[in-house]
Amino acid sequence: MCSSDLQEITVGQYELVYNALSFAIATMGAATLFFWLGRSQVTERYQTALTITGLVTAIAFYHYFRMFESWGAAYTVVDGQIKATGVAFNDAYRYVDWLLTVPLLLVELILVMGLSRQETWSRGVRLGALAAVMILLGYPGEIADDSSTRWIWWALAMIPFAWIVYELFVGLGDAIKQQPEDVRGLIDVARWLTVISWSFYPVVFVFPMIGMTGGTAETAVQVGYTVADIVAKAVFGVVIYMIAVRKSTDERRAAGLVPSMEIVT
Amino acid sequence: MCSSDLQEITVGQYELVYNALSFAIATMGAATLFFWLGRSQVTERYQTALTITGLVTAIAFYHYFRMFESWGAAYTVVDGQIKATGVAFNDAYRYVDWLLTVPLLLVELILVMGLSRQETWSRGVRLGALAAVMILLGYPGEIADDSSTRWIWWALAMIPFAWIVYELFVGLGDAIKQQPEDVRGLIDVARWLTVISWSFYPVVFVFPMIGMTGGTAETAVQVGYTVADIVAKAVFGVVIYMIAVRKSTDERRAAGLVPSMEIVT
Repeated sequence: MCSSDLQEITVGQYELVYNALSFAIATMGAATLFFWLGRSQVTERYQTALTITGLVTAIAFYHYFRMFESWGAAYTVVDGQIKATGVAFNDAYRYVDWLLTVPLLLVELILVMGLSRQETWSRGVRLGALAAVMILLGYPGEIADDSSTRWIWWALAMIPFAWIVYELFVGLGDAIKQQPEDVRGLIDVARWLTVISWSFYPVVFVFPMIGMTGGTAETAVQVGYTVADIVAKAVFGVVIYMIAVRKSTDERRAAGLVPSMEIVT
Repeated sequence: MCSSDLQEITVGQYELVYNALSFAIATMGAATLFFWLGRSQVTERYQTALTITGLVTAIAFYHYFRMFESWGAAYTVVDGQIKATGVAFNDAYRYVDWLLTVPLLLVELILVMGLSRQETWSRGVRLGALAAVMILLGYPGEIADDSSTRWIWWALAMIPFAWIVYELFVGLGDAIKQQPEDVRGLIDVARWLTVISWSFYPVVFVFPMIGMTGGTAETAVQVGYTVADIVAKAVFGVVIYMIAVRKSTDERRAAGLVPSMEIVT
């Protein structure tokens, strides 16, 4: 949806989106620094997982910064009156972001599991490709104005989404059984966070098709996607970080390197 | 081709190029951070290769940022209407970028092979010089308006290109046979990625000479070069990274330093 349709936004709605976008800039930036500073605390085996966890939030930081600038350019608020400037809000930043970050989110989950090279490669490529296809199928619907076109692309994008859920819950079943006991619960949390937070997106996508219009729809879509992004990237990343730290401690202890110390997570 | 010829661009074409340039900024920035964070995970022998891999994407990040700004300055879109501002889009950033990055791409491939000093130097200088000559020969064609001038420089630039392909596939043959078995496949992938992604450029160059005109040609050229750059620099870089990590693991294991742990790539 391009914002030129949506000039009847209220000052309150404008400010809610404005502040939500700024909140996301702060959250994504802080999360990035947290993950990269934490890299030195895990064993080499899990450093790439944390590198990518931080890359995802870094890429989102960049796009939220661009969206914030674009939102500010689309409206002016003077003396409590809001006016569209005629410059369109570029919503496409979200899809550009997802095309990069959603495959990487699945790659970071695979990497932190510490599977064999062969399995890491085959699962990473398959899940990453499915995620990219899912995003590409969503985009034509997002920019369409009529509901029936939106529903068609929505349904098509749900096919790779369902496949990803199947891969996470059935395909990864055996691999999860081989994980150390103290991280199995966290990996389960990571899987569920993925499925639940990713389910937000098709729901938010549907808002304009179920009667929400104008400023209300635009605000609900922008705030909804922002909340979903923070859960799917930053909160999910913290779980990945905890898994990496626990597995590092276990492996160091098994190698006799940390007989009595423990990193608390 | 300078943008002053190309004022009949549509809003959709403008936005496609705009988003493609922003996508490249995010990708090149993320790739740079990935390669430089990964430096600490490889042995000293391969750190220079990763430094240069990240330099290539960092230089591209800078130039895509400049191109994004230049593209935004060349047009204004207000109320869904696009107007050329009269400020030319500076396409020369691409050639300035390639003059720096294309020789470095070949140098990173040579460095990650870990050849003798003598061979690294001679092959690096020869391939780097050929790449620079190739870019310099392409430029007079790119700025020419008539097709026959474009074809002449195109053909001249293809000579060093063919020579580089010969060096990669015949000249490097013996050196590749001496690589450890588990990276030979990846080095092959790197060679093929180079040849295939570099082949995009002469094809994109030809777009305006085969009947594509105005906004369609400009859009196809800009998006085409952007996709080629991402494959040739970021995707190629990931392969170089994987080679460096695998060889480091092999060498550490041979030295008895990592008896049981493995960095998964």
